[in-house]
This record gives sequence, C-alpha cells and structure tokens, in this order.
Amino acid sequence: MGHPRTALVIHGGAGRYKSGMTPEKERAFHAALNEALLQGHQVLRLGGSALDAVERAVNSLEDCPLFNAGRGSVFTHNGKIEMDAAIMDGKNLCAGSVAFVTSIKNPITAARAVMERTEHVMLVGPGAEEFARDAGVTIVDPSYFFTEARWESWQKIKNQEHTELNLGTVGAVALDQHGNLAAATSTGGMNNKKFGRIGDSGIVGAGVYANNRTCAISSTGHGEYFMRLCSAYDISALMEYRGLSLEEAAQEAINRKMHDLGGTGGIIGVDRVGNVTMDFNTDTMFRGYVKTDGVTWTGVGDDVTHKEFRT
Amino acid sequence: MGHPRTALVIHGGAGRYKSGMTPEKERAFHAALNEALLQGHQVLRLGGSALDAVERAVNSLEDCPLFNAGRGSVFTHNGKIEMDAAIMDGKNLCAGSVAFVTSIKNPITAARAVMERTEHVMLVGPGAEEFARDAGVTIVDPSYFFTEARWESWQKIKNQEHTELNLGTVGAVALDQHGNLAAATSTGGMNNKKFGRIGDSGIVGAGVYANNRTCAISSTGHGEYFMRLCSAYDISALMEYRGLSLEEAAQEAINRKMHDLGGTGGIIGVDRVGNVTMDFNTDTMFRGYVKTDGVTWTGVGDDVTHKEFRT
Repeated sequence: MGHPRTALVIHGGAGRYKSGMTPEKERAFHAALNEALLQGHQVLRLGGSALDAVERAVNSLEDCPLFNAGRGSVFTHNGKIEMDAAIMDGKNLCAGSVAFVTSIKNPITAARAVMERTEHVMLVGPGAEEFARDAGVTIVDPSYFFTEARWESWQKIKNQEHTELNLGTVGAVALDQHGNLAAATSTGGMNNKKFGRIGDSGIVGAGVYANNRTCAISSTGHGEYFMRLCSAYDISALMEYRGLSLEEAAQEAINRKMHDLGGTGGIIGVDRVGNVTMDFNTDTMFRGYVKTDGVTWTGVGDDVTHKEFRT
Repeated sequence: MGHPRTALVIHGGAGRYKSGMTPEKERAFHAALNEALLQGHQVLRLGGSALDAVERAVNSLEDCPLFNAGRGSVFTHNGKIEMDAAIMDGKNLCAGSVAFVTSIKNPITAARAVMERTEHVMLVGPGAEEFARDAGVTIVDPSYFFTEARWESWQKIKNQEHTELNLGTVGAVALDQHGNLAAATSTGGMNNKKFGRIGDSGIVGAGVYANNRTCAISSTGHGEYFMRLCSAYDISALMEYRGLSLEEAAQEAINRKMHDLGGTGGIIGVDRVGNVTMDFNTDTMFRGYVKTDGVTWTGVGDDVTHKEFRT
C-alpha cells in the first residue's frame, strides 16, 4: 500500500489572453506555476495539512509579479491597489476573508488569520489591515506592489470609465493525506476598478468553497457572475444533492450556468478522493496540478495538444 | 378567477429576546411590522414588482428606530455606524450590495442602485458612498442614526473586546402578480464590532437570494454561520436539486445544518407559487406576511399560541 492520496491544483487566472501570448511569456508562466506546485506539494508530501498547502502555493503566486494578486496586483481608478482573498477549511467549514486591503503582502495569510484568530469570517478595509498588523501578518509599503506591466495597463485605460477584466487571480485547492480538503483564492481585482468594488475572490461560496464531504473549489474570471451564481458552493451542492461527479458538477456550473448567464471564467477543484478538475470557458487559464507521485502538470491555453508541460 | 397570487414576507431580526420583551415593546414591534407589510403590499396590489415591494418594505423597517438597520443601527467599537445591505432580483439573478457604509439613509436603496446602475454586484466603504451620492441616493448626517437605545447598549460593552449579536437585521421577500421573486436584507451589524467586520446581510447567497425557479430568501442571525453555509442559496439549491418544498428546505438549512454547526438565526422565504416560510432556531423572530387578500399576520415569539396578531 502506498502513501494516502494527495492532490494540489492551482490557477493563475482565466481570460482571453491567447493573442497576447508569446513563447517567452508562456515559459515564465509555466515556471511560476511549477514553483507554486512544488512548494505546496512539499507540504502535502510531508503529511502537512491541505490548509497549509493551499496557503503556501497561493503565497508563491502572490509573490510572483506575473499574477494579479499580491505583488502583481492591478491598479484601481485612483492608482491604488485593493486586494481581496479568502480561504476555507473543508474539515470544519471554517472560513476567513479580507477585502479591500492595500498594504498586506500576502492577503491569503491575512484571510487565514481572520479564520483562525477571530470570531468573524470577513474583514474589510483599514480595519482588516489593523487586525492583520496586530496578528503579525507582514505589511509592506505600497511601492512593493508597483510593477511596470500593471502600471502600463492602467495608463492605457485610466482616463476611461470602464474597468477591465484582468487575468491573474490566483487560487489553490488541495487534498491532504488525512482526507482534508481546503481552498484559497487571492486577487488584485479589476484594472481601473472604482467605488470599492469587491469581486468573488473574497466571498465564501462564490470565489472559494471547501467541504470534506464533497470538494474544494477556487474560482477565477468575471467575479460578478460567480457571485450571482454562488458558483463555488454550487459545485459542492450539485455533488451533494444531485450526486454528480466533480467533473460533471464543474461542467454544469461553468459550461452551462455561467455560459447561459453570459459570464466568463474558470474553476479548479479537487474532490475527497483526489480527482481534480480545471474547467474554463475562456481561451486561457493558467493552471496546474500535482498528485501523490509529485509529477507536476501545468497548462496555459485551451488547445489540449499544446497545453501539456510535465516536469 | 381572482387576482394572480402575491405574497410578501418580512423580518426584523431573530435572536434571544424573550426575557427582555414587554407587552408595550411587543405592540410597537407588531405595529412597525404591520406598517412595512402594508407599504409593500400596496406595491404588489397595484401590480408593482417584487423588487419594488421588498425595497419599500425594507425602507420602512430601515426608517424605524426599533430595528438594527438604517436609522436604528448599532454602534461599532469605534462608536460609528457601519451598515450592509443586499438585494436580488429572481427574474434575472441580478444582485446589488453595499457594505461598510456609514452615511446612507437607506442602504437597500443604494444596493439596488449598484444592481441597476453599475456592472458590479458589491461596493464597499467610501467608494460605495461616493457612488450612492452620485446616483442620487439620500445621504444623511451621522447624527441621524443616533438612537438612545443603541447608544446605551453600546455603552455597556464598549470597553470589552467582544461583539454582541444584535437582534434587528431586517429583510423582505416577495412574489408579484407577474410571477417574479425578489429578496432584500439590510443591517447595522453587530454591536461593538471591530476591524471592518462584514456579516452575511451584504453577501449574495448568504444573507439574500432570489431565483424565479425556486424561491426568494432573506436571512438574519449569527451572520458568520450563514456565510459558511451559504444558507440563502442553499435553500434554493435544496429545492432545485433535491426537489424539497420551501418549508422542507428551510428546515434542513436552519434546523439541521445551522443547528449542527452551532449557529443561531432564522430565514424568511417565499416560493414561486406564493408559499411562505419563517423558520428560526431562536426564541424570537420579528416577522410577518401578507398575501393576496391583504390580511397581515405578524409574530414575535416562538410560542405559536401567542404569536398571532391579525389586522
């Protein structure tokens, strides 16, 4: 008998990106995804918790400027950074979330502190930052989040009223050796967003959900649709109430419901026996997984014949 | 053949309140609930939309200092008011929400403006207020929200670290003559809350949900449990995926799931043929309904023999 099964799935956002992709960029994304998978897998391999694994993997993606979360977050209409993140533990349905935070290096770590050290689920704005600081979560100067690429994207549309969906929300879901599931999602939101807009990433049931009885889910895409459909929880409900498999439930949520409402995006998921899914209705989703054997798989586009990249 | 069926159900919060109740207070609550029912029913009777009816009923409850929403909102740890509200249209699954707002007279009206006049679902903090002001929603001086009763409640615990569940979140759900469902929830949150805590009232799927295929739901109680269980959407999912009736689904969500997790609270709901439910696992839920015939029913305690009060 081998080790109990483990699985870790991650994403770095879904959207229309094919036309802007170059071989160099694609290699950089594969490398960043692999790094996050290896870090998370290291936790699982040593018997660590799914919760630790998803936090570690998301920290890695938050620290990478390629993704729209943590370090690489996009700018708001006022030239600021506003980040949201949420985490959930499938063992006890505990959850934590921060939203509208501007100075926390790793929002997912702050979300976990909310879950473990408060009686609340969701803290927002200056209050969330005050709590995070008190809890010993790393606070950084706003200049930490400045990246040339995001600045340029913002310069192009900052004088316009519209926002822009920005690929690059990150997330992770995991099954650990003890049979526990966890999910985490972290984002910098929409480019040029206004008015304190909060998307799905910080919302339990929309951007993140985990329940040991069913699955762990992290979403990415046009957040408003995920919020209206409660997509992350919906996949769990379809499994629990209708007996669908993870794959069937994800198809129903993304390829039927999301599609019918006109939304775009994707989800990653893992179920309690280690099946994984990565479903999206866009041309690109940065994604990858690693199972018990430690072999990583990462993908970028929707063209199956070209998306495989094994270590 | 008579008029097409209509139904409006409202609540003014659920919690432990029996010991603090007096006949005078009880009469005041019945009167306030009746007023809100009459205002909402007037909309439905004239062929107006479920959306207009729930907004009107919630406005009435927000304007009443007895409830912890709008005018009667509780104080935060810093002596401020922070309100959340969300509204959803079952016809198209459109939703709007504001959270962490301090100067909006009727937060549910601001939530509706978010739904109808932005591409977003949820706006928080100063950005939400800026948007509301631009949209013509009434802004008031903070002194508007000062009520002696809330001030005294806060004085008792302001030097302590804990928050206090405060009865009095308000909500409404309705079915109109055209077969459309809508739901709305508005709250001042927890007494003495800190750190920008957001509860379920502003969260689609937790504090509010509406879908013409199933039901419209508004929640009240210990918000964190509603968020972790996605309770409002869960009732819809139990009906859609398991074929439960509204009453069965509400029982499962509140009397089993919520109870098992240790949470307290209640929900009101209406389904697409006008069945209504008002389920709670506390000793008190201020609540009431009015159907097509215009006869109102309001209730306060959990003692069935004493809760009836017909106009």
